[in-house]
Amino acid sequence: MYNIDKLFEAVKAKGHVCVGLDTAVEYIPPAERKRAVSDAEAVLAFNRALVDATFDACACYKVQIAYYEEMGLAGLACYAKTLKYIREKGGLVIADIKRGDIADTATRYAKAHFTGDFEADFVTLSPYMGMDSIEPWLAYAEKNRKGAFVLMRTSNKGMRDFEYLELSSGKKRLYHAVGDKLSELAVAHNGKYGYGAFGAVVGCTERDEAEEIRKNYTNLFFLIPGYGAQGGAADDAALLLREGNGGVVNASRSILKAWEAELKKTGGDESVATNSFAAEAARKAAIEMKDAIQTAIR
Amino acid sequence: MYNIDKLFEAVKAKGHVCVGLDTAVEYIPPAERKRAVSDAEAVLAFNRALVDATFDACACYKVQIAYYEEMGLAGLACYAKTLKYIREKGGLVIADIKRGDIADTATRYAKAHFTGDFEADFVTLSPYMGMDSIEPWLAYAEKNRKGAFVLMRTSNKGMRDFEYLELSSGKKRLYHAVGDKLSELAVAHNGKYGYGAFGAVVGCTERDEAEEIRKNYTNLFFLIPGYGAQGGAADDAALLLREGNGGVVNASRSILKAWEAELKKTGGDESVATNSFAAEAARKAAIEMKDAIQTAIR
Repeated sequence: MYNIDKLFEAVKAKGHVCVGLDTAVEYIPPAERKRAVSDAEAVLAFNRALVDATFDACACYKVQIAYYEEMGLAGLACYAKTLKYIREKGGLVIADIKRGDIADTATRYAKAHFTGDFEADFVTLSPYMGMDSIEPWLAYAEKNRKGAFVLMRTSNKGMRDFEYLELSSGKKRLYHAVGDKLSELAVAHNGKYGYGAFGAVVGCTERDEAEEIRKNYTNLFFLIPGYGAQGGAADDAALLLREGNGGVVNASRSILKAWEAELKKTGGDESVATNSFAAEAARKAAIEMKDAIQTAIR
Repeated sequence: MYNIDKLFEAVKAKGHVCVGLDTAVEYIPPAERKRAVSDAEAVLAFNRALVDATFDACACYKVQIAYYEEMGLAGLACYAKTLKYIREKGGLVIADIKRGDIADTATRYAKAHFTGDFEADFVTLSPYMGMDSIEPWLAYAEKNRKGAFVLMRTSNKGMRDFEYLELSSGKKRLYHAVGDKLSELAVAHNGKYGYGAFGAVVGCTERDEAEEIRKNYTNLFFLIPGYGAQGGAADDAALLLREGNGGVVNASRSILKAWEAELKKTGGDESVATNSFAAEAARKAAIEMKDAIQTAIR
C-alpha cells in the first residue's frame, strides 16, 4: 500500500486539511519565544503543541524546509525533530522541499528525504529538468510506500511566466505537459483507490481551470496550496477534489497565526498567548476550514 | 561589484574550471575512509585537501547539497564547513541547491543560503514557478554582491521533456522563455563586465544549439555542466564561452575520482591512495581540463 492510499484514508476519516508548518519564529507568541533557549527550540515546542491539538482535525502536515534552513544547522535539527514527532504519532508528513535535479543527484536526494534524519512520507518535487529528475524517487514508492507531489500549476502570480505558457502542439500549456507525464506515471504506479503514488501540486487560486484540471487528471491526487492568505476559498478548493476525496488543501499562516485573531476577539493581551492558547486557536481554525470544505463539496 | 564580476576576474586569472564537490563518500580513498571518525568527517577532510590542491587551477567551486543532505544533519554540518573553508581562503563557491518557491518562501531560502551557516557566493535556482520565485534573491545581489545561476537548458536527457518544448508564440522553446526573462533581469542588474548579477545554467551536451544560445544571451554568464562524465568535451564547452570569458565549466567526478585513474596508471595498490595523493591527481585533472578549454577557445 502506497502512502497515497494512507492519505486517501486519512482524508476520509479526518477531512481535507493539510496543516502547513511553515513556522517562522515571528509567528510564535512572544512570551514563548522569550522563554525558549533558542529560536529553533521555540519553533519545535510550538510545532509539537500544534500537532497535538490538530491531529484529529487534519489529514496530514506539510513542513516547508525553507523556514528551517533559514535558522541554519539548528533549524534543520528542529526540522528533523518535527518530522519525527509527527511520524512517531502515526501522522503523515509532506516534506515541502521542491527538489529537482539530474538522476544521480536525485538518487542522493531521495535517500536524504526518504530515509535517515529527514525521513518524510511525501516530498514535493519540481519538474523543470524533466522526468529523469522525478523517476529516481519512485524506487522508494515501490519499496518504502513513499509518495511525492510534483509542481504542476502553482498558486503564485509568477506561475503565468512559465507554467502557463502555451505549447505549439495540442493547444496545451506547459502545466498540461507536466500533468500528462505524471498521469502516465500514475498508471504504472497506481494505488488501491485509483490515485498514483505520485500526485501533483495544483493551486486553488485559478477557479476557471479547476474543473478542467480535475476532469483531465482523474488519477492524480492533488496537494492544493493557495487557500486563505493567498486568496483561495473552500469553493475553489472543492473544485479540485473528486468524489469527496482526491486532494488535501494546505493552510499555513491562517492556522499558525490563528492565536492572533483569537486574542483580538477575546480582547486579552499578549501575555495570555501561550503555546497551548495558540494550539487551541489552531485547532479551531483547522476545524472551521475542514467544515467549510466539507460544506463546499455538498 | 557583484560576485559575477569577481567570477569574471577569477576566470581571467585562473581559467574556466569549476570544481564540483559532489563528494560521495565512495569517491574517497578507502584508507582515508577507514581512518575518519565518520563519513561526514571523511568528506570534509577530502574536500579540504582538494580545495588546497586545486585553488590556483580553478575559477570557483560548486558544492552539490544533495550529497551532504544524504548524510543527514552531520552531512549538512560538513556542507557548512566546506563552504566556510573555501570562502575563508578567498575562493568563490556556488551552492548547487536548485531552489524555487513562492516569494515568501524564496525570501527565507535567500536568507538561508546568502547569510549564516550556509552562506555561499552564488546559488542555483529553478525557474518553474516563475520570476517571483527568483526576484526575492536579488535583494542580496544589490546589498551583499550575491549571485545566482538559474536553470535554463540543462545537460541531462530529461531536459527534452519540458525545457525543450516548443511554445506557440515566436517559435521558441521553454528554455528561451526562461533565457529571455533572465536577460531582462540582467539589464536591470548588470555587472561591470557586461554580465548580469544572475546568470544561467546551460549544459554543453547539445552542440547544435550552443552557438545560438551564446549569441542570443550575451549578457548572461553561464554555469556549464555536462563536461566529462556526461559527454561534453572542451570544444562543446568553448562554444558557450564569449571572448574567452562568460562561463565556468563544471566537472565533478572526473576531478574527485582522478586518483583512481592515476592509481591504475602508476600500478600502485589502494593503500598508496591518501587524500594528498587524491588531491594531487585532482590538481592534474583540473589543470588538464583548464588547458583543454583554453586550447579549444583559440
